[in-house]
Amino acid sequence: MILLKNIFYLVRDSLRIEKNIDLLIDGNRIKQIGRINSKNPQNNIEVLDCKNKAVIPGLINAHTHLWQSMLKGRRDDLSLVPWCEQVIYPFIQVLREQVKYTRASEIGYLWSMLGAIEMIRAGITSFVDMDSGYFAERVPQAWLDIGIRGVFSVEMVDKWVPDNIRIDPKHEKENILKLIDAWHKYSRGEPLIKVAMSASAPFTCSEELLSWILEQSNKYNLAIQIHVSETKWEVEQCLRNIGKTPLKYLESIGFLYRPIMAVHCVHLTDEEIKIAKKHSVSVIYNPKSNMKLGSGIAPITKMLKEGVNVALASDGTASNDLMDLFEEMRVGAMLQKVAHEDPAVFSAQEIFSIATEGGAKACQIDAGKIDEGKLADITIINLSSPHIFTLSDDIIPALVYCAKGDDVETVIINGNIIMQNKQIMTIDEQMIVKEIEKISKKLKNDLK
Amino acid sequence: MILLKNIFYLVRDSLRIEKNIDLLIDGNRIKQIGRINSKNPQNNIEVLDCKNKAVIPGLINAHTHLWQSMLKGRRDDLSLVPWCEQVIYPFIQVLREQVKYTRASEIGYLWSMLGAIEMIRAGITSFVDMDSGYFAERVPQAWLDIGIRGVFSVEMVDKWVPDNIRIDPKHEKENILKLIDAWHKYSRGEPLIKVAMSASAPFTCSEELLSWILEQSNKYNLAIQIHVSETKWEVEQCLRNIGKTPLKYLESIGFLYRPIMAVHCVHLTDEEIKIAKKHSVSVIYNPKSNMKLGSGIAPITKMLKEGVNVALASDGTASNDLMDLFEEMRVGAMLQKVAHEDPAVFSAQEIFSIATEGGAKACQIDAGKIDEGKLADITIINLSSPHIFTLSDDIIPALVYCAKGDDVETVIINGNIIMQNKQIMTIDEQMIVKEIEKISKKLKNDLK
Repeated sequence: MILLKNIFYLVRDSLRIEKNIDLLIDGNRIKQIGRINSKNPQNNIEVLDCKNKAVIPGLINAHTHLWQSMLKGRRDDLSLVPWCEQVIYPFIQVLREQVKYTRASEIGYLWSMLGAIEMIRAGITSFVDMDSGYFAERVPQAWLDIGIRGVFSVEMVDKWVPDNIRIDPKHEKENILKLIDAWHKYSRGEPLIKVAMSASAPFTCSEELLSWILEQSNKYNLAIQIHVSETKWEVEQCLRNIGKTPLKYLESIGFLYRPIMAVHCVHLTDEEIKIAKKHSVSVIYNPKSNMKLGSGIAPITKMLKEGVNVALASDGTASNDLMDLFEEMRVGAMLQKVAHEDPAVFSAQEIFSIATEGGAKACQIDAGKIDEGKLADITIINLSSPHIFTLSDDIIPALVYCAKGDDVETVIINGNIIMQNKQIMTIDEQMIVKEIEKISKKLKNDLK
Repeated sequence: MILLKNIFYLVRDSLRIEKNIDLLIDGNRIKQIGRINSKNPQNNIEVLDCKNKAVIPGLINAHTHLWQSMLKGRRDDLSLVPWCEQVIYPFIQVLREQVKYTRASEIGYLWSMLGAIEMIRAGITSFVDMDSGYFAERVPQAWLDIGIRGVFSVEMVDKWVPDNIRIDPKHEKENILKLIDAWHKYSRGEPLIKVAMSASAPFTCSEELLSWILEQSNKYNLAIQIHVSETKWEVEQCLRNIGKTPLKYLESIGFLYRPIMAVHCVHLTDEEIKIAKKHSVSVIYNPKSNMKLGSGIAPITKMLKEGVNVALASDGTASNDLMDLFEEMRVGAMLQKVAHEDPAVFSAQEIFSIATEGGAKACQIDAGKIDEGKLADITIINLSSPHIFTLSDDIIPALVYCAKGDDVETVIINGNIIMQNKQIMTIDEQMIVKEIEKISKKLKNDLK
């Protein structure tokens, strides 16, 4: 059992804040919240002192591409399509070449671990990974080793990808089924890993592929994630080729039969927002990525007004380039304010809720709030840094606008202390970083 | 002398990057850049190992209000005018009350120090403070004590401020002249402190007050800073009352006689951008503050195209709420990209240049680049964190999109090591924080 003692601010959710209280974790769940005596002799209780700390639900990063962990800081002047052509595809090509030199699955394991370390250090306890079809075999193994909760999916695509990096469709499907088989079977007894299906986008997947994805999703009871209406260009393509906007098209082919996660939705029409609500689509908001690629500003305020569930995400680190949801929260809120030229249009509480409860709902994880019985996914923030000093008791705005990933001191996932006092407890971070540096030297040369 | 040895990336400016090189500081200037022998026996050289570090010009925060250091995390749903009425003025009122209980100048010293600590920790070596007319007497003393380079000004205003917090105009002018006298005289022999004049805004100052400010600026040879066209409302007011847009109005009354710093310029017209260029106005870009208050998006790309000098700033921490120019740089670049729905419109190099050279030019400080003969204002960044791991040799995009204030390890200002390995060397940070906490208890109660 773990006892969080003398919590200065306990943020149960965006609206319920308590002060000077204790929290007891038993197994992987929150057992009790209140004034709790730590001197109970029959139990082996680990006590964490939470004076001058804020204890919040672990943040949920509802969309990333961990295989981009090694692509930070490359180009910032390209919109989605040329960015794919000039940043993403060349890297995939280099990866394919690497197979000759390296144990392929080792690269996947290392980029996965690099991303997991970054997220834990920033207080993220759960995430959805849309990985590449390359080297994905051991990607979730890294999450098990470090102890983070992840939804594992591999992005499928059969249109619009150049021949030199395309996996042939038959082989791609076999590969996915093999991965599902390996990890979905495994995950039944393992609360940290979930498997999901993922499709690149309506304009990059054939209707046949989308149907196949939906079929597997039904068969194995898996969530689905898909990029939708990220750019105007894509919406225009869809209208020209199919005569429908992307989400409307997905509805028309029955793809919204299950409650999918629709990533971006920057250019959703009012009609599509209603469609999203009707089919319980969760919209994944990636404000910084949408800004950096110049994609546009998603109509999140409208979506919330319509009752659509919204989650927050960093997107892959080639288009952000950080997985720090504190920064993502404030930028996401500020972006709505400036888009409407009205600061009242979006509150710190709303974005906090999106980054916690919204993500939990989208990913179907029993976390995102701090309540008795909920999963013990908890982030502890040190409030003593000068940049976070506040005279306000309104701790949510202070956290949203002032906290940085580096203020996260301790992270508990599934009832386990994964990071304590900024030290990751479950893996040898130094050794991992050294291995990453070794492998990256070769990759770096090939990328030149 | 200080020798920076084996610098991994030496960023001289946004376009000139060198690798594996040394840099020698003598007194308060950069003496030599190249391969330098540290074993020169006649000199007492302190050697800093810069393996796996990036050495960059210290960042310049061209506009802040340090007296807002204690107002973080208060309200995020108010646009400029109601925000002044509901956040700013009540705090000023509380401060006025405080005079009864506290040595007034002590509060000013402490908020000044709190802000200086935050900035140094984020790699900022110079800044412009537009302080309040209250408790400003010892504000620059904190900068001398910690060793940061600051431009000190007190915001003057004689319209639009409620009676209960207004300082009477005659007393205000006397107060400013006293402060100029104290600090400007002093600063002649002191390279860390400069004094400037500052006016609140065209719509909050009478023409008489603006003329008086210009007069003092001419008399003492002081720079001028003024908020210009922050909100649409303000531009409309100006048009209605004076028949001119704000910068045009300032031109018409001769206020652009000196090269002023015009803060915000969110709603500058094309004609005003040409006016800015003609009169060598430096525009101060505050992207996050403009977003948070819903003020709008400044046409920075147009300004750069016209050849206007632009500097970067955090604004006060009541409307941001961080003074971290790494975050400000990426948000500032991303905001331009998304405004134009074109990522090519603004580069990492441009925003880096704005945060260094642009600031140096605006503030008339002989820094902002790393060259022999320049002031030794230098920030050293640790590149070994997982969130900053990159395969790219393009170090500017990696720094702009991945670095956080907390990656700053060492800060040198005016040839002095102010922070080394994240430890501030010049003051007792713990003691200062304790004093701030003591004073803030009373303030916090009064603010409720």
